[in-house]
Amino acid sequence: MTLNIEQYMTDIGQRARKASRAMAKADSAAKNRALMLIAAAIRRDADTLRAANQQDLAAARANGLSDAMLDRLTLSDKAIATMAEGLEQIVALPDPIGEISNMKYRPTGIQVGQMRVPLGVIGIIYEARPNVTVDAAGLCIKSGNATILRGGSEAIHCNQALAKLVKEGLTGAGLPQDAVQVVETTDRAAVGALITMTEYVDVIVPRGGKGLIERLIKESKVPMIKHLDGICHVYIDDKADLQKALDIAFNAKCHRYGTCNTMETLLVARAIAADVLPKLAELYRAKEVELRGDAESRQILAGYPLLKEAVEEDWSTEYLAPILAVKIVADMDEAIEHINTYSSQHTDAIITEDYTRAMRFLREVDSASVMVNASTRFADGFEYGLGAEIGISNDKLHARGPVGLEGLTSLKYVVLGQGQVRQ
Amino acid sequence: MTLNIEQYMTDIGQRARKASRAMAKADSAAKNRALMLIAAAIRRDADTLRAANQQDLAAARANGLSDAMLDRLTLSDKAIATMAEGLEQIVALPDPIGEISNMKYRPTGIQVGQMRVPLGVIGIIYEARPNVTVDAAGLCIKSGNATILRGGSEAIHCNQALAKLVKEGLTGAGLPQDAVQVVETTDRAAVGALITMTEYVDVIVPRGGKGLIERLIKESKVPMIKHLDGICHVYIDDKADLQKALDIAFNAKCHRYGTCNTMETLLVARAIAADVLPKLAELYRAKEVELRGDAESRQILAGYPLLKEAVEEDWSTEYLAPILAVKIVADMDEAIEHINTYSSQHTDAIITEDYTRAMRFLREVDSASVMVNASTRFADGFEYGLGAEIGISNDKLHARGPVGLEGLTSLKYVVLGQGQVRQ
Repeated sequence: MTLNIEQYMTDIGQRARKASRAMAKADSAAKNRALMLIAAAIRRDADTLRAANQQDLAAARANGLSDAMLDRLTLSDKAIATMAEGLEQIVALPDPIGEISNMKYRPTGIQVGQMRVPLGVIGIIYEARPNVTVDAAGLCIKSGNATILRGGSEAIHCNQALAKLVKEGLTGAGLPQDAVQVVETTDRAAVGALITMTEYVDVIVPRGGKGLIERLIKESKVPMIKHLDGICHVYIDDKADLQKALDIAFNAKCHRYGTCNTMETLLVARAIAADVLPKLAELYRAKEVELRGDAESRQILAGYPLLKEAVEEDWSTEYLAPILAVKIVADMDEAIEHINTYSSQHTDAIITEDYTRAMRFLREVDSASVMVNASTRFADGFEYGLGAEIGISNDKLHARGPVGLEGLTSLKYVVLGQGQVRQ
Repeated sequence: MTLNIEQYMTDIGQRARKASRAMAKADSAAKNRALMLIAAAIRRDADTLRAANQQDLAAARANGLSDAMLDRLTLSDKAIATMAEGLEQIVALPDPIGEISNMKYRPTGIQVGQMRVPLGVIGIIYEARPNVTVDAAGLCIKSGNATILRGGSEAIHCNQALAKLVKEGLTGAGLPQDAVQVVETTDRAAVGALITMTEYVDVIVPRGGKGLIERLIKESKVPMIKHLDGICHVYIDDKADLQKALDIAFNAKCHRYGTCNTMETLLVARAIAADVLPKLAELYRAKEVELRGDAESRQILAGYPLLKEAVEEDWSTEYLAPILAVKIVADMDEAIEHINTYSSQHTDAIITEDYTRAMRFLREVDSASVMVNASTRFADGFEYGLGAEIGISNDKLHARGPVGLEGLTSLKYVVLGQGQVRQ
């Protein structure tokens, strides 16, 4: 069986590599036409998609999946409409491929610059949500890449139905069907093959829980665009504007609990702590947020109904829940030291009106997104103006932070000469 | 013993990580001052350096190293002067760190842009040449990184003497000594530790022969900026200017045989082959270049004294010698197909006066450098205007092509707000 899977995946890889060459040459009009055709087909076949989704949901219920999982798996009318609109938004984005920049003449007379090109073949590994199939396919098509999609086994019927519509759109626009392939087996060996086929896959984008990503990091031979977790900080400086501090610290924690850009640790300057913490506690109390404080903050917060002691582990925990670690620091230096030690290098913010501290925080905090006087919840491809997001990277090589179309591209050097030779 | 090496390397890694934080904050003046001090110390201690080099050379002779290796190991007066001048050239380059670009207001009122930051800790693994110690240290200092240098065991005395001067310069400029560390053991286990310490090392730049790189690719857990080989092509189109074709095809092969940007395979359009090949053969003949041709080119080249039959293996061989593979192709499509199949994605060039073909070649050839009417020998950091080069990358993620200061940096997002929260 596993041998067959390997052969099956190699075949998919070879087809993807071949399709990627055609996609790299495809002009903007053809790529946009494919996206429009897919959007139209999704609207036209909404009933079929819902029926496929019902099959998945029935199997999921039979397998006893949690309500949260069933919720993520459900393809509502709104989700179907959003998928189609998402594709139309990608159409509206400028085509990144072929863009030439920085063409400069050198003393030898050659002209040197860079051209933006696709990465080649992108493997996407994701869990329940079927909309990722269409979102990821759309971004990969627009950026001239071929893609291999490996969705969760729970969504297999829905993903296959969507894949059919994607292929219809590609064919209608004269692009190779194999530019988007959905792995049609739920065998886990398929993932193992996908992340080790370095000759056919250029990059893997995993989207899912920490367990999935950790396993992939251990086993993958193909480079990944990924983040493991989001342990995001807000530091309230003693030169902070109190209202901004309250607004942002509340929003960063309570706007949504389950997202990777949610604040998990609040750092407060000692000089302002007795003023700001009680006011913040009132806001958190209304949302029943549990506070896990160090000794000093617990003194200030005494009487807060959901107050616990923070232990060492709390500083490196991503709660994804109405829980917040709280720590008093002497000053910004201690805050930066704490962040650079415990942060997952995702997103960290300072609240201050002090110019020099703001500039130093921006420079010295070593995270993918560093903010002044703004909620960490803004760390998002759409909010940053990238148009759409294939994932978020906490790594430093290649793309960092929210990854949009450009993160799926690379730059090659182009040299224009008139017969020059090296002396 | 190996356990001790591991502890020794972990200690180096921890020091480097700590130093990298200080280097990331260091201002341009301090970094430039360190470089100037190192340059002055190298000139001052030229005698000491030569003495250390004599120790290495004596040991190398005793170990029976080849003349070529001895030549690469020798630190001549000129090499010493060039090292010092190289540092001064790096001083003259603009500091890439802290540069903020693309700050744009979003509809929410936040301003989003990117800041250039160091990668962190760079591991450099190289063979004989001692000048790499100083060149690499200079580039890493200027780009705000800490670096761990692991040179060849043949050059250990010279590298240690150079490291002492580098540390003197760092200290003199108020920068941490540990920003540049030379691994002081020749035990191979040190390399094994260096390429797997993902918590302390952010990227490895290997510089050496194919054997070294292949071994590192297999074992490294840390991402690498590297190229394995340079199988570079020149395609002479039937719309080529004959003189440009002769100049470039001669220069690309014969300017230097041992470099990675040297042409290894020549592709010639059928329609022009009978005209251009005999003229080229005259030039190659003077340099005693062996030609390995396909059946068709051998007919045209009949009588050339160093003519052999090209076998399949020749199309993917990097000769690094006065040997050239030659193949006749029907047209540019066949040339591109051949290049995208056999090229090592290093550097490939077309010679043509046809505008549409030139543009298509640039877009469709999937290599780090793609050229029109210029010698492949131009693929080089200095020739491209990067100022200096730490290596060349054939990979698509992160840096591609010649890698200068910018390739040792990353971009993080910076967000400037006025108290904005996510709605």
